[in-house]
Amino acid sequence: MAIPYPHFISSEKAAVEAGLLVPSSPSSSLSPPVILTQDDLKKIAAYKAVEYVESGMVLGLGTGSTAKHAVDRIGDLLRQGKLKNIVGIPTSKKTHEQAVSLGIPLSDLDSHPTLDLAIDGADEVDPFLNLVKGRGGSLLREKMVEGACKKFIVIVDESKLVNYLGGSGLAMPVEIIPFCWKFTAARLQNLFEESGCDARLRTFGGKDEPFVTDNGNYIVDLYFKKSIGDLKVASDAILQLAGVVEHGMFLDMATTVIIAGELGITIKNK
Amino acid sequence: MAIPYPHFISSEKAAVEAGLLVPSSPSSSLSPPVILTQDDLKKIAAYKAVEYVESGMVLGLGTGSTAKHAVDRIGDLLRQGKLKNIVGIPTSKKTHEQAVSLGIPLSDLDSHPTLDLAIDGADEVDPFLNLVKGRGGSLLREKMVEGACKKFIVIVDESKLVNYLGGSGLAMPVEIIPFCWKFTAARLQNLFEESGCDARLRTFGGKDEPFVTDNGNYIVDLYFKKSIGDLKVASDAILQLAGVVEHGMFLDMATTVIIAGELGITIKNK
Repeated sequence: MAIPYPHFISSEKAAVEAGLLVPSSPSSSLSPPVILTQDDLKKIAAYKAVEYVESGMVLGLGTGSTAKHAVDRIGDLLRQGKLKNIVGIPTSKKTHEQAVSLGIPLSDLDSHPTLDLAIDGADEVDPFLNLVKGRGGSLLREKMVEGACKKFIVIVDESKLVNYLGGSGLAMPVEIIPFCWKFTAARLQNLFEESGCDARLRTFGGKDEPFVTDNGNYIVDLYFKKSIGDLKVASDAILQLAGVVEHGMFLDMATTVIIAGELGITIKNK
Repeated sequence: MAIPYPHFISSEKAAVEAGLLVPSSPSSSLSPPVILTQDDLKKIAAYKAVEYVESGMVLGLGTGSTAKHAVDRIGDLLRQGKLKNIVGIPTSKKTHEQAVSLGIPLSDLDSHPTLDLAIDGADEVDPFLNLVKGRGGSLLREKMVEGACKKFIVIVDESKLVNYLGGSGLAMPVEIIPFCWKFTAARLQNLFEESGCDARLRTFGGKDEPFVTDNGNYIVDLYFKKSIGDLKVASDAILQLAGVVEHGMFLDMATTVIIAGELGITIKNK
């Protein structure tokens, strides 16, 4: 059920915490309309998710422009003493650096193989809370960390909702080993020929240099013209290709999705 | 059907070619018994396999002590002019070096995505011609190359025959990314808890340094006390673990297995 912004903004709490409003004076009960950017929506979803964090938790820290807001917020609450004894498990080198700069105590999966909660963004969310992730290039570490969590909260703005995975027309990433990557890319494209698949090597900064993941691998982005059908079947078929390390479909992993839209926040639970 | 060595040796052809006998004079029809070492058996199987090679073929070149004999033999036949226009696709950096030193023209999967034939050894062969490979550490490139072949001939001595994969009590290797390898090793061990699985990181030269594959990854060796059951199910379960790159089970890939034993050669076809 969507919590509409009129209520949300009239209470002001979340919007003020997200830095989108200054507290109004008692006389200004009719606030001027607030125009929310996509980044504002990401921040609202992120702050909402951090309400689920409790002191003492082992937390998976996501990667990307939405998750960044959540990590910042956790850092704030630690600094303010509102959260204590948090252990963060970052999902990328980039998030590791951000968390270190915020003073969030960190560990890893080897020391903490079970996490209480992870918060992360997603590139696509389907009606069954299946996700596409990894446009930021961290899909493998994200999948390892988020697969080890009791709860996994996904935070998105409403532009990420799709009827089926791949439906946004944007990339579904697959991490592959560099050895004979053209061969592997061609096999991926053939696998989804019926869905009008186009497989492209991800390059770095618009140049011809391949983008290299934190694990030293390449990313092939798959673009589909049509649905790829049964996701579990597609997942296994991709993983069965020698040369593939991991793909960006996160099936049956999210327990909660928080969606920030123009008209309010929607929270979906598994 | 086994071709027994009495016949094989009386014809002398293969044993002479394999350098295990010098041609006997007409008067010495009762040759002294030949004691064949394990390496002799490997060589006999390898030479037999190379009989399937024809001029003009694109060939997958295997890795390991048995495959090495086949690559040597292909080099010999090229030098003698008995084979021409061979293109080799090596399955490891080591085999690449060996082939270069023998003057075998080489290419890769990107240029030749379909191969005519591959010849390689195996660590285990079950009655259905499923294999365990990768004790040499090249399982991923081997699987990529050998999965792209029209025919895949496996050459083994009889010590490699098992009733079920894992049945030799030796390692079933899994290539994993180095990131949080202990976590991934623990998950692999848990996956096969009912089979009494022990998962150990492969180390280099008996030291504590991890063995690193050609792709920059680690190997976790799985040891089983009991059968792991349905191999297809086990394969998918392993591949579904984020952090796993590939495993050493080669299911439904071998088209021919040539087995050299004390009593003769056996050729099994799919």
